[in-house]
Amino acid sequence: MTDLSPLVPRAAALVAAARAAGVRIATAESCTGGLIAALLTEVPGSSDVVDRGFVTYSNGAKTDLVGVPADLIAAHGAVSEPVARAMAEGALARSDAHVAVSVTGIAGPGGGSAEKPVGLVHFALAATGRPTRHVERRFGDLGRAGVRLATVETAMRLLEESLRD
Amino acid sequence: MTDLSPLVPRAAALVAAARAAGVRIATAESCTGGLIAALLTEVPGSSDVVDRGFVTYSNGAKTDLVGVPADLIAAHGAVSEPVARAMAEGALARSDAHVAVSVTGIAGPGGGSAEKPVGLVHFALAATGRPTRHVERRFGDLGRAGVRLATVETAMRLLEESLRD
Repeated sequence: MTDLSPLVPRAAALVAAARAAGVRIATAESCTGGLIAALLTEVPGSSDVVDRGFVTYSNGAKTDLVGVPADLIAAHGAVSEPVARAMAEGALARSDAHVAVSVTGIAGPGGGSAEKPVGLVHFALAATGRPTRHVERRFGDLGRAGVRLATVETAMRLLEESLRD
Repeated sequence: MTDLSPLVPRAAALVAAARAAGVRIATAESCTGGLIAALLTEVPGSSDVVDRGFVTYSNGAKTDLVGVPADLIAAHGAVSEPVARAMAEGALARSDAHVAVSVTGIAGPGGGSAEKPVGLVHFALAATGRPTRHVERRFGDLGRAGVRLATVETAMRLLEESLRD
């Protein structure tokens, strides 16, 4: 199982910083399947900060829950910059949060290709009144739990940076 | 951090059984904040089975995402049998899943009362064409991670039983 223990102190600091800033957070997760929300809610009192999370595992869920257009998925694939951006912006729009982070990637062991190998993850960070940020990472084949851990860590960094900006 | 490692073999067996039965699963999680979906998606190939998850942490999220009436929450509290039932039935209705499990409880350390102490969790299991099941557990104050782990374990048992029935 993906071991998020090393990230709990960072989650506690992030929740405290968000609370102090009056910022609420939403998540839209594909390959992490809820790990980011689970990490944030490990922190006592996180209900002040965590509004909701969307685990958009299937393509239908990406469309239904956070409004990713089906033709965007058809054109670019679920693991792509446009879909990551649409997930984050959809999560922001369909929540009471001020910041939303999204992840969509290939955790493996199956599902990789030459163009989109295991370990490829697209991230986006949408925040009220700011341009959406996109980040692409190619972690390599760290194993399913390794890719998921690296993905949660990068998502945490994006949230941390958004609170510092 | 809640350590779900002991439950991974059971998750793998559940995903295999659901795949064999052609059953897709959705989750609606409050106090576990995504842990159930994260556990199920730790299994390679779980995208055949896991449709989506709703992390309905705030009361607004319970209403917006899975249609729990706000007056039901006002009348019974978010941690109650009627809300657990409405979460599971709402998740089933707003997904492509055949089975949906919900959890709403008090993980602590704060938020408990004499009537609703830390460790109280309400569960529901909704499945197409069957009456919704409700279960109440009082785990006691096992610590936040302990309550969350016990909650995931009970949710897994409900899913396992629904596949055996």
